[in-house]
Amino acid sequence: MTEKPLILVTNDDGITAPGIRALIEVMKELGDVVVVAPDSPQSGMGHAITINSMLHLERVYIDEGNQEEYSCSGTPADCVKLAVREILKRKPDLCVSGINHGSNSSINVIYSGTMSAALEAGIEGIPAIGFSLLDYNYNANFEVAKKYAKTIAKNALENGIPEQVVLNVNVPNLPEKDMKGIKVCRQARANWEEEFDKRQSPQGKDYYWLTGKFVNLDHGDDTDEWALENGYISVVPVQFDLTAHHAITTLNTWDFNKT
Amino acid sequence: MTEKPLILVTNDDGITAPGIRALIEVMKELGDVVVVAPDSPQSGMGHAITINSMLHLERVYIDEGNQEEYSCSGTPADCVKLAVREILKRKPDLCVSGINHGSNSSINVIYSGTMSAALEAGIEGIPAIGFSLLDYNYNANFEVAKKYAKTIAKNALENGIPEQVVLNVNVPNLPEKDMKGIKVCRQARANWEEEFDKRQSPQGKDYYWLTGKFVNLDHGDDTDEWALENGYISVVPVQFDLTAHHAITTLNTWDFNKT
Repeated sequence: MTEKPLILVTNDDGITAPGIRALIEVMKELGDVVVVAPDSPQSGMGHAITINSMLHLERVYIDEGNQEEYSCSGTPADCVKLAVREILKRKPDLCVSGINHGSNSSINVIYSGTMSAALEAGIEGIPAIGFSLLDYNYNANFEVAKKYAKTIAKNALENGIPEQVVLNVNVPNLPEKDMKGIKVCRQARANWEEEFDKRQSPQGKDYYWLTGKFVNLDHGDDTDEWALENGYISVVPVQFDLTAHHAITTLNTWDFNKT
Repeated sequence: MTEKPLILVTNDDGITAPGIRALIEVMKELGDVVVVAPDSPQSGMGHAITINSMLHLERVYIDEGNQEEYSCSGTPADCVKLAVREILKRKPDLCVSGINHGSNSSINVIYSGTMSAALEAGIEGIPAIGFSLLDYNYNANFEVAKKYAKTIAKNALENGIPEQVVLNVNVPNLPEKDMKGIKVCRQARANWEEEFDKRQSPQGKDYYWLTGKFVNLDHGDDTDEWALENGYISVVPVQFDLTAHHAITTLNTWDFNKT
C-alpha cells in the first residue's frame, strides 16, 4: 500500500478563520494533514518574514479529526519555514494556503500573505497552491470553493506542478449553478488607486487610513480578471524567478561609463 | 529651461540609516529630491502593506539641503503609496530605494522591503530602482556604491526603464579598484536553508529565532550571484507580472472534471 500524501495547510487570515477550516476539511479527504498557520490575521503581509523578533509555535486543537495543528506568531512565510524545518518529518507532497477571505487575483498576488506562503513552499521545492474566494465576509460560503479546491489539489498531487511554479486559484462568489468551470489564465495588468483617508487624532496629529479601488487596466480575455468576471475559477501559474528576461537586451544598450 | 527631474527616495532600513542618507546625497546631484521613508527598520517586510492600522506621516529635517523629507510609520510599500497620493505634486521621474545595508540579490528580492518599494513605484508606472550594498554593517562605506548608483540612475532618467520592469541593483563590498563594472544579469536560483534556534522562555515556553544560510543552486555565469562573486555590480530587470507563461500549456492538460 502506498503512503497517503502529506499535505501542509496554511493561510494568512489566521488558524481559526472559516476559510482554512474549510480547506483542512477537504484536504483530509486527500491525505494526512498538518496545519501550521498564523495565530492572528496577516492580510496584506506580502512576503514578510520575521527576522528581528522571535517566533512562538504552539500545538493547538481546534476541530475534531486526526490533523496535527500548530499556531504560529509569525507571518505566513514564517509558518511554512517552521513547518518544513521544525515540524514535518518529511517534505510534504503538497502545500495549500487559504481559502482566503477575498480576492488574490491580478496584482493582489504581490501583496498577498496567502500567496506568499504558497511561494515560500514553492521556493522549497514543494508543489503549492493558494486558494481565494471573492468574498471578504467572515461568514462566506466556502462550499463551492471546497469542491474546486479538491479537484485542483487532486490534479496537483497526480500530475505534479511544473518546477518553480505555484498556482494562484481564485473562485468567484457565485452559486454552483452559475460556475462555468476552471480556466488557466495569466495575471491581469491592474493596480490600486489608493485614496488616503486623512484624519486628526485628539492630540491634533494627522494620520491616514489606506483605502482605494482596484483598477483593471487589461482587457484581454486570457486574464484572471476576465475569467472571474465571466463566472470561471481562475488558475494562474506564478513564478518566483522575477527576472524580466525580455528587458536584458535593452539594458545592455545603456552607457555605464556615464558619471 | 527644462524642469529638473523629480526623484522620490525611500528605503527599508529607516529614514536615518546611512544607506538612504548616501542615496539622498547623490540623487540631489541629479534632480529635486523628496524622501518618504519608514520611521523604523522594515527589513524582511516583503511587499507588506498596512490595511488594519493607521499610518503616521511627519515632515522631518535630518540633513542640510533642499530635499523635502517625510518619515512614515508604515512599510516601504506604504511610503511609496503615500508619497504618490498625498505628497508629490506630480508623478516623479524616478523612484530609488536604498541603499540597502545587505544583499537583495537572487531570491532575496522576494523578501526585500527595499525592492518592494521599487516594485510599488513600478506598479504605479514610475521608473524605479532598488540599490543594495553587500555589507550589513551600519557603518558600511557607501562611497563606491554612490558612484554606481548615480551612473545607473542617470541612465534610467535619460533612457527610461522598459515598461513594467524595475531594476534590482546589488553592489559587491569591494574597494573601487577591484570593481569590474556593471553587468546586466538574471536572478540566480537560490534558497535559504533555515535553521531555527529553539529556546525556552523563563516561563518554560518554547520560542524560535530564524537563522539560516543562503544556498546558490545556480551555476550560470549570467546570474547576479556570479556577477557579485566576480567583482561586478549586478543589475537585474525585475517584473511584477508573475505569470509563468511557459506553464500554461502544461496546466491545460489537467483534467478538471475529477472530483
